Amino acid sequence: MEERRTLRAPALDPAAVEPRIGSDYPIRFRAMVASRERRRLGDALGLKNFGVNLMRLPPGCASSQRHWHSRQDEFVYVVAGEVVLVTDGGEQLLAAGMAAGFPAGKANGHHLINRGTSDALLLEVGDRTAGDEVDYSDIDMMVRWVDGEERYLRKDGGLYLARIPEEKSEPT
Amino acid sequence: MEERRTLRAPALDPAAVEPRIGSDYPIRFRAMVASRERRRLGDALGLKNFGVNLMRLPPGCASSQRHWHSRQDEFVYVVAGEVVLVTDGGEQLLAAGMAAGFPAGKANGHHLINRGTSDALLLEVGDRTAGDEVDYSDIDMMVRWVDGEERYLRKDGGLYLARIPEEKSEPT
Repeated sequence: MEERRTLRAPALDPAAVEPRIGSDYPIRFRAMVASRERRRLGDALGLKNFGVNLMRLPPGCASSQRHWHSRQDEFVYVVAGEVVLVTDGGEQLLAAGMAAGFPAGKANGHHLINRGTSDALLLEVGDRTAGDEVDYSDIDMMVRWVDGEERYLRKDGGLYLARIPEEKSEPT
Repeated sequence: MEERRTLRAPALDPAAVEPRIGSDYPIRFRAMVASRERRRLGDALGLKNFGVNLMRLPPGCASSQRHWHSRQDEFVYVVAGEVVLVTDGGEQLLAAGMAAGFPAGKANGHHLINRGTSDALLLEVGDRTAGDEVDYSDIDMMVRWVDGEERYLRKDGGLYLARIPEEKSEPT
């Protein structure tokens, strides 16, 4: 597909964007998402008001720890493969072409797991409303602002290691 | 696909969302987008901070009149089929899996045209930053705020008909 390589802004071939692998979670929580690949398409295109990632989930991999956001909306569309959506309401299988959305402030932790045998490809969108906090459903972790910086904390407020910029992380 | 019909929030089968056909442009400008189908997935999922539409473009149909936004970012991903992206910089063919992004305030009018023989399916995202204005590249039209209401105006400021809420429009 030589043609794809020659796309120029404002168009983009996602294959031209370097993927980020894994997460910046505290190390004990990384295994579930260790093989997650995210390509930040929105950033690559110069967008500021929301982020768009093309996410590849190999078999066995989750999109994140199960969580919900206080101020930011989230949207997911399944481009290829299939994933299981897990929320407080149970599990649903999402095939290619299906969508899901998570309104800000709705206390219903969610994530997607690839329980199949081939990769799943998803498009995920989230806005950048300031002051967002994140609560995690299944683990002793939350994201809060401490001295103007987003930090991973225990639910009793105790600090984990500082939040590591994703570009410097060394996922395990 | 019985399974799809049973998806429940926060998951959504796009087929369960009624499409809106055509546009609310002044009548003289509607032909180019008359067969455009948009399903407002973000609204259906209760999202407020940005909109996500699944857009079907039959052969010959454009995504919009060529335009750019003053304050809102836009993103497009080609899910199936292919479209031609037209900007001030010329034309590029976008196959399935390709993306494009239009940063707010960048004065480069864009739209997508399906010049193929089968439908194209796109996901489009735009945020809802207040006070947004729209400029159109190829026609005598712009969107400005008049007495707190978005209106289609001629470039000399003259009014077209009041902007019609899309749900009440009768596209031609």
